[in-house]
Amino acid sequence: MFIAMKPHATAAEYEAVVEKIRALGLTPHPITGIERKVVAVIGHTSGLDPEDLFGSMPGVAEALRVSQPFKLVSREVKEEDTVVDVGGVPLGGKAIAVMAGPCSVESREQILEAAHAVKAAGATFLRGGAFKPRTSPYEFQGLREEGLKLLAEAREATGLKVVTEVKDTETLPMVAEYADVLQVGARNMQNYSLLERLGTVAKPVLLKRGLSATIKEWLMAAEYIVAKGNPRVALCERGIRTFETMTRNTLDINAVPVLKALTHLPVVVDPSHGIGLRQHVPAIARAGVAAGADALIIEVHPHPEKALSDGHQSLTPAEFGELMRQVRVIAGAVGRSVL
Amino acid sequence: MFIAMKPHATAAEYEAVVEKIRALGLTPHPITGIERKVVAVIGHTSGLDPEDLFGSMPGVAEALRVSQPFKLVSREVKEEDTVVDVGGVPLGGKAIAVMAGPCSVESREQILEAAHAVKAAGATFLRGGAFKPRTSPYEFQGLREEGLKLLAEAREATGLKVVTEVKDTETLPMVAEYADVLQVGARNMQNYSLLERLGTVAKPVLLKRGLSATIKEWLMAAEYIVAKGNPRVALCERGIRTFETMTRNTLDINAVPVLKALTHLPVVVDPSHGIGLRQHVPAIARAGVAAGADALIIEVHPHPEKALSDGHQSLTPAEFGELMRQVRVIAGAVGRSVL
Amino acid sequence: MFIAMKPHATAAEYEAVVEKIRALGLTPHPITGIERKVVAVIGHTSGLDPEDLFGSMPGVAEALRVSQPFKLVSREVKEEDTVVDVGGVPLGGKAIAVMAGPCSVESREQILEAAHAVKAAGATFLRGGAFKPRTSPYEFQGLREEGLKLLAEAREATGLKVVTEVKDTETLPMVAEYADVLQVGARNMQNYSLLERLGTVAKPVLLKRGLSATIKEWLMAAEYIVAKGNPRVALCERGIRTFETMTRNTLDINAVPVLKALTHLPVVVDPSHGIGLRQHVPAIARAGVAAGADALIIEVHPHPEKALSDGHQSLTPAEFGELMRQVRVIAGAVGRSVL
Amino acid sequence: MFIAMKPHATAAEYEAVVEKIRALGLTPHPITGIERKVVAVIGHTSGLDPEDLFGSMPGVAEALRVSQPFKLVSREVKEEDTVVDVGGVPLGGKAIAVMAGPCSVESREQILEAAHAVKAAGATFLRGGAFKPRTSPYEFQGLREEGLKLLAEAREATGLKVVTEVKDTETLPMVAEYADVLQVGARNMQNYSLLERLGTVAKPVLLKRGLSATIKEWLMAAEYIVAKGNPRVALCERGIRTFETMTRNTLDINAVPVLKALTHLPVVVDPSHGIGLRQHVPAIARAGVAAGADALIIEVHPHPEKALSDGHQSLTPAEFGELMRQVRVIAGAVGRSVL
Repeated sequence: MFIAMKPHATAAEYEAVVEKIRALGLTPHPITGIERKVVAVIGHTSGLDPEDLFGSMPGVAEALRVSQPFKLVSREVKEEDTVVDVGGVPLGGKAIAVMAGPCSVESREQILEAAHAVKAAGATFLRGGAFKPRTSPYEFQGLREEGLKLLAEAREATGLKVVTEVKDTETLPMVAEYADVLQVGARNMQNYSLLERLGTVAKPVLLKRGLSATIKEWLMAAEYIVAKGNPRVALCERGIRTFETMTRNTLDINAVPVLKALTHLPVVVDPSHGIGLRQHVPAIARAGVAAGADALIIEVHPHPEKALSDGHQSLTPAEFGELMRQVRVIAGAVGRSVL
Repeated sequence: MFIAMKPHATAAEYEAVVEKIRALGLTPHPITGIERKVVAVIGHTSGLDPEDLFGSMPGVAEALRVSQPFKLVSREVKEEDTVVDVGGVPLGGKAIAVMAGPCSVESREQILEAAHAVKAAGATFLRGGAFKPRTSPYEFQGLREEGLKLLAEAREATGLKVVTEVKDTETLPMVAEYADVLQVGARNMQNYSLLERLGTVAKPVLLKRGLSATIKEWLMAAEYIVAKGNPRVALCERGIRTFETMTRNTLDINAVPVLKALTHLPVVVDPSHGIGLRQHVPAIARAGVAAGADALIIEVHPHPEKALSDGHQSLTPAEFGELMRQVRVIAGAVGRSVL
Repeated sequence: MFIAMKPHATAAEYEAVVEKIRALGLTPHPITGIERKVVAVIGHTSGLDPEDLFGSMPGVAEALRVSQPFKLVSREVKEEDTVVDVGGVPLGGKAIAVMAGPCSVESREQILEAAHAVKAAGATFLRGGAFKPRTSPYEFQGLREEGLKLLAEAREATGLKVVTEVKDTETLPMVAEYADVLQVGARNMQNYSLLERLGTVAKPVLLKRGLSATIKEWLMAAEYIVAKGNPRVALCERGIRTFETMTRNTLDINAVPVLKALTHLPVVVDPSHGIGLRQHVPAIARAGVAAGADALIIEVHPHPEKALSDGHQSLTPAEFGELMRQVRVIAGAVGRSVL
Repeated sequence: MFIAMKPHATAAEYEAVVEKIRALGLTPHPITGIERKVVAVIGHTSGLDPEDLFGSMPGVAEALRVSQPFKLVSREVKEEDTVVDVGGVPLGGKAIAVMAGPCSVESREQILEAAHAVKAAGATFLRGGAFKPRTSPYEFQGLREEGLKLLAEAREATGLKVVTEVKDTETLPMVAEYADVLQVGARNMQNYSLLERLGTVAKPVLLKRGLSATIKEWLMAAEYIVAKGNPRVALCERGIRTFETMTRNTLDINAVPVLKALTHLPVVVDPSHGIGLRQHVPAIARAGVAAGADALIIEVHPHPEKALSDGHQSLTPAEFGELMRQVRVIAGAVGRSVL
């Protein structure tokens, strides 16, 4: 249920609504839009009649049951695009942000070389994994804290913001100390304990779509984070699992416009995992921007042939530079710019 | 197996190769590229050693076993893009072709109004179904021959080329009499009897991808048509079936660059069926061009709210006009133009 | 819409209903059950009110709008199980029928040896393909009419009924001349021209599920055949396409009880294509019977290692004999017998 | 890589192998089968030649590279079925175990009534969730520790072993204190931090298959647990995600025989989540046993119409009793009994 106040409702009228919500044993969750205040009501509201309870209170414009199971992340509750502030750099909004870097942090030389290269080509975020969830227990799992420190060093050297994966609640405090954006991997999209904890952290979250998650389930996962108090969430389409085996995953380009209509959160496209074939990453990156994505996250490795993971889907710095050039033109075609 | 002649091989050298193929009980299928001649060898060649048999013959550059099960449609056999000539209008090549029109031909007024509108906005092909395969035996199945005649009349009136579906071998001669391009629907992609017959027809074929067809199976279906003698085939991505239910289908944007690398045939994107939601069709159309498609096929209806089928995914002429404007800019970004 | 007559309605009362249906420009399709007559009404009935039009006529028990898009094949229209009569041998009903034989008819020796072997082990139907739809135009496509003649000879020799695939309308008359049951392959499940023609043939049809057909679409395909006049249809689950690649297809065991609840048509399980791995065929065959299947269709080859197609999923006669023994016990556990 | 000792190899010969493994910087992981000892070698072994390094050492029968990425859970490494000992009750082996109970623990009365009912019908394990991972942050999340205490009380009252879900590492110690078997839900199948922690716990684990996990990925997830030191793992097939929407999930019956061939771990079938429709649960349960499952886990609620979750897929005690009767007969047909 949510209650939309009239544009010129007074603070007292608003407080009366909030008090009545609490009196019903429910939790008010205020959302401040540009034009008006909306209060989402959290708790067991299925038996209640919104109009009957709140419709006639002074200052109330509408009291509605939400048809979609997600509330806080929906455009119904907040119409304007959310622009996530990442230490002064916007994620979302008119300018498209580009995140780039290697799959994993492998060494000081590698991450610094990659950071300088992607910065030079126009990226504003550096990606790189320090904790790598792997399908096999016998594979390289990342440099862990050492990797985080190297990412921080690369940030100092370049001014890029750091995006890196957090894989569990135990290491979350450590990752949050170094990262600018906390990435949740596809396999953790419905790790609800992790999502809830991310709702209490003062860092933006990049929530990747689960391999077989519907758009609705994905938005519900984002809802977990926002409901716990962290509104700075971006959604990252990284390919779904289908019957097609010629590509690593099937990047679902359709999700981009569908999400932009349903949610106010920024939408990021990951062409590298989405198609998983280096030669085709630029085509999918271009398609993502043409379809309306707010940001791209792309694997770039100074020497893909030597990468410890995902070398077959990483661009070289030169290929990335050429892609940036094309992306700028396409951004213009859809009324956007590149950050 | 295929045998590539040297650029300057003589006609006699070439004939000697063809004769040896026939002597082995196999069928030679010549493909003339810009730079050199290639002969595909059709038949049970699995026990034969290409290099041993043909490698040392005069004029032969290479004699290779094909790793992919498709031959005639592959880039290995023909490197240059195929440009399908549709009565003087090219499908494939540098300029992007746009096909537009209603799902079904419903009346003389409707199809003429649609044809003039899409022509004005820049389309060069008119789409419209006269024979409609429907999931239910109780639904509208199309105007049949009357519909074909109306399409022909619209062609006369506008100069647009006509793309329409052929649903079986019985009605193929009738449809071929009126159509400029014969469309094969997704459900018929592996109707091999129809494919073989299309191989003997002097009209280009637009082969839609089956709902759960892999890219390899799709190319094999195209191979049926080409192997029977009709090289004028274009492939149309129209969405695959996945677990996601928020969109009608999942347009597989990844297929576009993958196909462009594997085959020389033109690749068409159908955003209307691909996502199935009118408001999101432009985003997917733009993505298709950004990913490298050679053509778009889009449902446009003068009055979508009155359409007998697919009204919920048809653009109005005004929306289509605006889309054309964006498509032209994106085409420029990837070094293409719009026909 | 359908109209159920009272158990003791008179012929005149029934005729009055039929006449009124015709007067409305609709087509009556009578279904005679054991207890009462039901008339399905075919045509554009969406604007009509069944109860208003027919509810008060003498002899009418109920006049209902059908919620499911399929009518004639649904249990709502006909409650009792359909038992398809195949020249005196029942398909459907209490006794489970077993169909067995090679993927393709390869030679006189092969098909006769296979027929005698499966007969000895307890099969009542012989399967074998004479026309083989193949993914590649370069693969073995079957012995065609020669194969049909060999199947007929095997029938003479063993008394087994012959199940064989029909791949197009052109060869349908020829196949119908030899076969006892006409099999429609997965790729042709939505070949509506073929389905309609099968509705006019006096032979039972075994309709395989399409690779990515929903249960609803599959029932609609059966509806095409029945609506055109042929009520002798059985449905064959043969595996759907999913993301799992360790098995050839994913036999959807869930479809068996779901179909048994929705339709009165017999349900057949094909474990050979369903899992596609010889060693696991018996497990899936047993599961099919335990889940409620009315029949099994199993690939058995006298010498699987020499088979021209599907050898890797064919049982030997000995393995088939052992499976028949287990199937008999499981049939007993669910209150069934084996034919 | 793994090294199989000869049946009569001496302890000293075995120790020499183990020492050499350690000397190479690798970790030996011994597996004791009935007939012989096998040592799995864990670490970066891809550049090493097993035969060259170990083949000629005394007592060594074979030194092999494993083709499958999973080792410890594979039949190649341990041929005999693993029988997981759950406080004296076997899970795996000749006798089929049945786990039953409500989706969630809702109250003292409900869980005690359910426990007595399923015990009376022949179950040996009580299932019931105290921590419920839910798609929505606004849904009932379980009684938590109170639920665990009620499960323990039901165990005291009936002697049933308790199976309950653990959803994160934080609550793992608490759940492990009360549960006999720790269930990992589908959404957590690739929560590697949880899997690793479960490898250090002295309780058996029931690992559910992820919604879109391949069989290989699932076995790799089990490998995580076993590699960390806990060999008591059972695998639970609970339905995968496909395009079919008529059933909640698509229980993959094919996975049962495929797993039985690949792994020595017990295989459990969950028909309740697998099909998600109460009326069809018995058919799928029977199919599971017919296909070779070692155990069933079934939702049974004393009053399904009042259940707080999953009431639509829960059997009544009476339906469960009738199912147990059928399962016993089918178990006999495949040479098994019911515990």
